[in-house]
Amino acid sequence: MGVSVAADQAPRYAPGMLIHQDSLRVTSHGRGTIELTREVEAIVAASGVTSGVATVFVQHTSASLIVCENADPAVRRDLEAWFARAVPDGDPLFEHTAEGPDDMPAHVRSALTQTSLSIPVRETRLGLGTWQGIYLYEHRRAPHARRVSVTVIGA
Amino acid sequence: MGVSVAADQAPRYAPGMLIHQDSLRVTSHGRGTIELTREVEAIVAASGVTSGVATVFVQHTSASLIVCENADPAVRRDLEAWFARAVPDGDPLFEHTAEGPDDMPAHVRSALTQTSLSIPVRETRLGLGTWQGIYLYEHRRAPHARRVSVTVIGA
Amino acid sequence: MGVSVAADQAPRYAPGMLIHQDSLRVTSHGRGTIELTREVEAIVAASGVTSGVATVFVQHTSASLIVCENADPAVRRDLEAWFARAVPDGDPLFEHTAEGPDDMPAHVRSALTQTSLSIPVRETRLGLGTWQGIYLYEHRRAPHARRVSVTVIGA
Repeated sequence: MGVSVAADQAPRYAPGMLIHQDSLRVTSHGRGTIELTREVEAIVAASGVTSGVATVFVQHTSASLIVCENADPAVRRDLEAWFARAVPDGDPLFEHTAEGPDDMPAHVRSALTQTSLSIPVRETRLGLGTWQGIYLYEHRRAPHARRVSVTVIGA
Repeated sequence: MGVSVAADQAPRYAPGMLIHQDSLRVTSHGRGTIELTREVEAIVAASGVTSGVATVFVQHTSASLIVCENADPAVRRDLEAWFARAVPDGDPLFEHTAEGPDDMPAHVRSALTQTSLSIPVRETRLGLGTWQGIYLYEHRRAPHARRVSVTVIGA
Repeated sequence: MGVSVAADQAPRYAPGMLIHQDSLRVTSHGRGTIELTREVEAIVAASGVTSGVATVFVQHTSASLIVCENADPAVRRDLEAWFARAVPDGDPLFEHTAEGPDDMPAHVRSALTQTSLSIPVRETRLGLGTWQGIYLYEHRRAPHARRVSVTVIGA
């Protein structure tokens, strides 16, 4: 077991600091994941930022964000199966039921995953690992229009 | 199912980059959520930042942060009911019990929710969705004094 | 119950905005936590940033990041015990089993914890609470080489 610093890059003053914001409009077909990696990457490219951070934020409390394995779609089906068992729809535990049996579970699932992701930008691209994709996770059963905000700060 | 870019704003150089940090002192009455949206918004206003990111960070491991529905208080009661069942106080699974039957569950709940939130600042305000609020989630049963750090970076 | 603003610091223009990126290479001995606080602190020190934000990002989907209590190692053992029960290895629920009985649980555990952490930098140091440590959480049973990216932005 060990930890070492890679020392990739020296610190630098950034007199030409850039900031760029944009939004994604995502239309879901109901519960499940929708990959956003390519669209977030396009916003990073448009920002002109070489080194920095991209902040991805979903403006809802019944849909969320995850970084997940992007190779085998079964991974996201299994993740959904786990959530369906751990936070079941129609659970008699819940008092907030007026918006449907899947609404309160959607809020719990959102609290257990992410509303915001901060991803490094390195050499003008998202610094994701080989098998990482960015996904919107729709937790409601009905289709919804979702808004995801992306802010890129760097130089 | 589709994803489109809203293209709200062009990238721009930000020669007058701003950074602003402040802290919130939050006194809890024991387990439950306390809304911080208005206080974080006030720090964003004081920062002078028009476009950027606000980073909210809780300096504890038995209290956490969530973005949650701000309309029906039953949502946060149901979230608490779910956690009380999934991570029960006094669980015989736990070895770390010296600080009370609710201490180790508080650490698990904190790991399952957020220590930090990154929220876009747009047009001088937090870029939250209509139904989103920022909450400190106190997981201990006794009242605690909590510290939340807020950093706003942008232009 | 109350919330007050500490008003630690006035906003300021930051003409000498800094950005610094580096990576940690972490070798795990299999499932468990590895503390990274000292190494992230060293990158913050190298950055020259006095006030800002450090973004820590793990480039994998079967290992994750947590901020956890740093005093009693039993806390992290109990956290592991909770995950081992809530997301058991070899669960017949899972279809994605080709990479071993601990692979899909590793993806679920990662979704339930963090891929990215945003931590304030205050007075040239990480603005962590007294009992907070930054940990890589290896979820696979076999040793793995992991990469953690750190970006420091501030002034």
